[in-house]
Amino acid sequence: MRKTVLFAASVLAAGLLAAPVLSQQTSSLPDLEKAFDSHISPPEMGGWMKKMAAEPNHVGSAHDRLNAEDTLAQFKAWGWDAHIETFKVLYPTPIKVSLDLTTPKKFAATLTERPIPGDATSSRTKDELPAYVAFQGDGDVTAPIVYVNYGMPDDYKALERMGIDVKGKIVIARYGQGWRGLKPKLAQDHGAVGCIIYSDPRDDGFSQDDVYPKGAARPPQGFQRGSVADMPLYPGDPLTPGVGATDGATRLLREDAPTILKIPVLPISYGDAEKFLGAMGGNVVPPNWRGSIPITYHVGGTDAAKAHMVVKSEWSLKTIYNVVAKMEGSLYPDQWVLRGNHHDGWVFGASDPISGHIAMMAEAKSIGELAKTGWKPKRTLVYLSWDAEEPMLLGSTEWAETHADELKQKALIYINTDGNGRGFLGVEGNHALQSFVNKVAVDVTDPQTGVSVDKRSRAGAMVAAALGGANERTKAIGKAAADGKDIPLDPLGSGSDYSSFLQHLGIAALNVGYGGEGDSGGVYHSAYDTYEHHSTFVDPGFAYAGTLAKTTGRMVLRMSEQDTPVERYGDFADTVSTYLDEVKALAGAKREAQTAQAKLIETGAYKLSDDPKQTSGPPTPLKVVPFFNFAPLENSVVRLKASAAAYDKTLAAKAPTLSADAKARLVALAGKTEQAMTTEPGLPGGRGWYRNMVYAPGRFTGYGAKTLPGVREAIEDERWDDAETYVGLTAKAINAYADMLDKGVVLMGGTS
Amino acid sequence: MRKTVLFAASVLAAGLLAAPVLSQQTSSLPDLEKAFDSHISPPEMGGWMKKMAAEPNHVGSAHDRLNAEDTLAQFKAWGWDAHIETFKVLYPTPIKVSLDLTTPKKFAATLTERPIPGDATSSRTKDELPAYVAFQGDGDVTAPIVYVNYGMPDDYKALERMGIDVKGKIVIARYGQGWRGLKPKLAQDHGAVGCIIYSDPRDDGFSQDDVYPKGAARPPQGFQRGSVADMPLYPGDPLTPGVGATDGATRLLREDAPTILKIPVLPISYGDAEKFLGAMGGNVVPPNWRGSIPITYHVGGTDAAKAHMVVKSEWSLKTIYNVVAKMEGSLYPDQWVLRGNHHDGWVFGASDPISGHIAMMAEAKSIGELAKTGWKPKRTLVYLSWDAEEPMLLGSTEWAETHADELKQKALIYINTDGNGRGFLGVEGNHALQSFVNKVAVDVTDPQTGVSVDKRSRAGAMVAAALGGANERTKAIGKAAADGKDIPLDPLGSGSDYSSFLQHLGIAALNVGYGGEGDSGGVYHSAYDTYEHHSTFVDPGFAYAGTLAKTTGRMVLRMSEQDTPVERYGDFADTVSTYLDEVKALAGAKREAQTAQAKLIETGAYKLSDDPKQTSGPPTPLKVVPFFNFAPLENSVVRLKASAAAYDKTLAAKAPTLSADAKARLVALAGKTEQAMTTEPGLPGGRGWYRNMVYAPGRFTGYGAKTLPGVREAIEDERWDDAETYVGLTAKAINAYADMLDKGVVLMGGTS
Repeated sequence: MRKTVLFAASVLAAGLLAAPVLSQQTSSLPDLEKAFDSHISPPEMGGWMKKMAAEPNHVGSAHDRLNAEDTLAQFKAWGWDAHIETFKVLYPTPIKVSLDLTTPKKFAATLTERPIPGDATSSRTKDELPAYVAFQGDGDVTAPIVYVNYGMPDDYKALERMGIDVKGKIVIARYGQGWRGLKPKLAQDHGAVGCIIYSDPRDDGFSQDDVYPKGAARPPQGFQRGSVADMPLYPGDPLTPGVGATDGATRLLREDAPTILKIPVLPISYGDAEKFLGAMGGNVVPPNWRGSIPITYHVGGTDAAKAHMVVKSEWSLKTIYNVVAKMEGSLYPDQWVLRGNHHDGWVFGASDPISGHIAMMAEAKSIGELAKTGWKPKRTLVYLSWDAEEPMLLGSTEWAETHADELKQKALIYINTDGNGRGFLGVEGNHALQSFVNKVAVDVTDPQTGVSVDKRSRAGAMVAAALGGANERTKAIGKAAADGKDIPLDPLGSGSDYSSFLQHLGIAALNVGYGGEGDSGGVYHSAYDTYEHHSTFVDPGFAYAGTLAKTTGRMVLRMSEQDTPVERYGDFADTVSTYLDEVKALAGAKREAQTAQAKLIETGAYKLSDDPKQTSGPPTPLKVVPFFNFAPLENSVVRLKASAAAYDKTLAAKAPTLSADAKARLVALAGKTEQAMTTEPGLPGGRGWYRNMVYAPGRFTGYGAKTLPGVREAIEDERWDDAETYVGLTAKAINAYADMLDKGVVLMGGTS
Repeated sequence: MRKTVLFAASVLAAGLLAAPVLSQQTSSLPDLEKAFDSHISPPEMGGWMKKMAAEPNHVGSAHDRLNAEDTLAQFKAWGWDAHIETFKVLYPTPIKVSLDLTTPKKFAATLTERPIPGDATSSRTKDELPAYVAFQGDGDVTAPIVYVNYGMPDDYKALERMGIDVKGKIVIARYGQGWRGLKPKLAQDHGAVGCIIYSDPRDDGFSQDDVYPKGAARPPQGFQRGSVADMPLYPGDPLTPGVGATDGATRLLREDAPTILKIPVLPISYGDAEKFLGAMGGNVVPPNWRGSIPITYHVGGTDAAKAHMVVKSEWSLKTIYNVVAKMEGSLYPDQWVLRGNHHDGWVFGASDPISGHIAMMAEAKSIGELAKTGWKPKRTLVYLSWDAEEPMLLGSTEWAETHADELKQKALIYINTDGNGRGFLGVEGNHALQSFVNKVAVDVTDPQTGVSVDKRSRAGAMVAAALGGANERTKAIGKAAADGKDIPLDPLGSGSDYSSFLQHLGIAALNVGYGGEGDSGGVYHSAYDTYEHHSTFVDPGFAYAGTLAKTTGRMVLRMSEQDTPVERYGDFADTVSTYLDEVKALAGAKREAQTAQAKLIETGAYKLSDDPKQTSGPPTPLKVVPFFNFAPLENSVVRLKASAAAYDKTLAAKAPTLSADAKARLVALAGKTEQAMTTEPGLPGGRGWYRNMVYAPGRFTGYGAKTLPGVREAIEDERWDDAETYVGLTAKAINAYADMLDKGVVLMGGTS
């Protein structure tokens, strides 16, 4: 999963209800939800985690498969129509990984995480993956090492000014600032022959908190596994882009699969990294490149320090196991509410993903209990326990690609969770669902304070906005919170299983979790992400696991039981309008930066101001930024606003008078409206799998969302022709969205 | 001295001129300055430093006195009328200093700086001061230790929210963010019984650069000595505020001297600090409290870690030795141009203060050479080599207090230097001198680039303004630089010998130095501030020492030879106007902050948003901020602008037609104009020594300047009555300044 803010320390006991019996005639939503809540048991959820996180759970491990089978059995026992659906995916398993410092002195990186005293789970090292990242290249290289800070595009610009070239060298980058997979990808693009990624204690270690087991932070020997598949091209099985990895699927040859990197990559601990970084010569790094290893950081790149790295993997196809559980809708069986969380982990995976998985299980069990009393959901519920999320969303992607047509017909929404922590509700998703999410938050109680999670979020937003250094967005959210307006949803990028639904198929999605207090990031993707760590530091008593189940359970139930659409399209239109403002401001800011830089180069200011000992010359000149024709996009946003206003207004006025059939058709239409955001050919640069013109993971941010990505990234990346093309394509998508809203107005008997 | 940005690494060789013979008839300034430059010899200056920095030079040391006597002899040899003027000042010498960790395990802090291999000077440890700060209290205390971050007011607010009280405890604060002496002063005010100050490697150590001798940064055993006298009350001898510490002066009893602290204070190295900080329990610190020692920083305050500290000093009066050298003016002997640099150091003092002292010596020698050819300065030059600057400006303060009446009659300006480094010209001073300073900078050549130091400054300012994160002032300076307008002068606070002249007597002052590249801060006030360190890392070849002499030498010569006043009062008026805008904005911002905080407290937002494990409740409510009557100040600034405009315009128009006598009277008047900024009773709160209503060191910034301090600090510190009072007093001072300008206009035959 994506690393989110997950958190430590104990909580106040959650006020659990004794389980009441649900009347078969219960029809009011509050009664239904009260009955639903009564079956949520944090202690039981803790027990599930303990069992599921007892052994290594990576793809291909015996215990990961066992968890799928156990989950299947439980869903069945709870009354669900469940089965396991398998796919055959390319998944590399390490045969050999090694990393040695060869010059100036020999040191062999440990690449293993020794057991932690007092954490029994961490001693179950049999079958555990070593230091490894999936979908790197095999290789055996020896070369000088270069420290590249976070290994992001700006870092390479700084290296260029220092006169350092990474060509033929092994780069060492610290985790943070951008998605893991971009670091080796950019290193490879710059000619590096290998890439080491380490967890610097400034960002992820003793500098943050006491290290495990005294505190929650990453200990010196802990490292972060992960995937480095080139996800910004497409997620899922590298051999089957766009289609399900079924037995009969047409597959690419491995060497032709563009998402597999060519160079070897290894993640290491800061205990190991100290030996490599401490041996390096060359320039002392700029201030913002400094970490917290107790050395003076140098850029390296000289023959003073060399490393030898070997990575070899076994590249056969592996079977993965998705659990698919359905409960058919009593009134609208062809309208589906999807709910998912993955079950595979990098090692034991207590926080990631089991802390979210147990919330999903608790919902499924409770809904099963409700169903035993005679209640049935109006719409079909589909619960999904994914395999192979960690290597790059393989389980969900292959399933979504396989069932694309049916999903586009039936799915109203996909609700995702992954790791969960303690603190504040965080929701990302389609902006038309902003009001829906805010209403759910009002009805869920925060276990630490006893107020609603909505009220606690507002308090947090208001205080954050009042802090010195708060940015404009934080201030705006604080103001919305204080004024009683909805807290906005953040847009979805990537990093968990919602991606295929939202960005490939155009199905609305939400990603939900609690966090902000304490921290489980310190064991993220390590062998120390255990039941012991989670129950001590992240969510003691599993109080927030219960709260998450009550939150996502309400979302599922309200989507299922909705009478008229829950969407409020004015929110979407307003937000898209601010995105367009941002994109226009971006073009202006880039133009100003180019003009300013050109003047500094022309007057020799860079040369004159440079310390002769620190840099090797002025920066590479920026490209001249033309003026763009934003008019088609501007016009489409004006139209979207008008259509959204008409829809929202008509719905408010006509809802009481609509027929049941009209309402049902209206909900179905709302489910498809978001699909209007997708267009062919999708994003440029080999990224056609991403068809959503409003939300995408960034080419150079990875998990981080880029909104209006076709236009925004074209401007950022100086592809001026693409900017013009995608103004048109994005305007087309927005107009298509407005068309859908207009259809809704007509369906309600209004005039569009 | 004040720690300024001083810097490391080698430089391009300075292009030195062969010495021409000055014609006795030379009258043009360019010819005079060319002749002046010809006598500046960096190698000779390096020789002076080597000798002066050969042994420890603290107050009371034999070598410090020897340096005074040698300087006297040299001035005399160069043709100056020189003498040594002594004072008897209270100056504590350490008898015993010790610091031990007693719980949880024993550790005795080293408190000594062992010699550095390859640095011969650093081995001359005989007579060297141990870890010590001057004007702390004697004491012998054992108590739990509390980490207070930088020990500034906001840090105590954060501690309060964590529920930590320092009463009865020993605080440990890191250097930085505010002046050294404020840390124990605030600790004492909060009830602490002792104070440890250490150099954190994040701010001052291996995190910044390779440590000495490999690089310029502070090694693990290096610490920063200094003064902790409560300088914001008054500098100089604690026993003789406002009067010279002559033999017959009336003295306070030591126990009544308000600038002497009551609690013991010790500075330690980060090597020692690691043992204390690593032993502490309690909360993990907030993110902005983290340093770079490789531990998890805790706040402490519990019995888990205790320390025992002992400080005992010998408190007799000591004799200090100022060298005063005069060259009488040929035309206006009663108009004085003062030029000074101190000669005492904390240990060897190569960078601080000798690197500036050798520039002053080179000027004196060159002027002496010019005088030997028959040239004489028009006005009297007074060169001043101060003693006892380090304990808190004792030499300059006692001299200025002793000669106050004569100085107020005769002094036109005081030009100060202290430590000097490599890089960019930095000048602080009275804003009416902005144009004067900018013109000097145009005529001095930067040794690394061969362009003028003005051009290099502009390049630096333009590039700094273009960096991401540049603040508004940096952007404004960059724009001024790009537009060819004058680079503004920063206002003077305190931290070197200009303070008495500017802030007590109202004599215009400039403080001049080069810096910005490399760094000598890593040996600041340590036994490693040696000739070896300075000549290797700070100013190789003494190129910038020569450049400084050429810069300040020009300032001296131009002040001496000026025909009509060099001041441009419009610059002062414009700058004061922006200060008034800032003060008004400050009141508004505080009002907004109070309103916002009150709302957060009232709605319970702090309580609800707090992590129950991290804080102990909402912050202390801010005081309600009234509206102030700024009208008197606003009106005075409007008047100042008008008077300044009239003066500058009249001078430009009439200068060619004025008689020699009128010109001389005009220059004399300009010298006194700045005195109008001083008023009785000076600043409130026991700070009446500070009489300048425009420039002062801040009560809670120490060296950092506060402009319009009577009003600004009253608002900052929530003394509402003082704010009203000082609006009036400051307006009075500004009106008096305008009166002086009006007199000048009348003197020129214009109408005011």
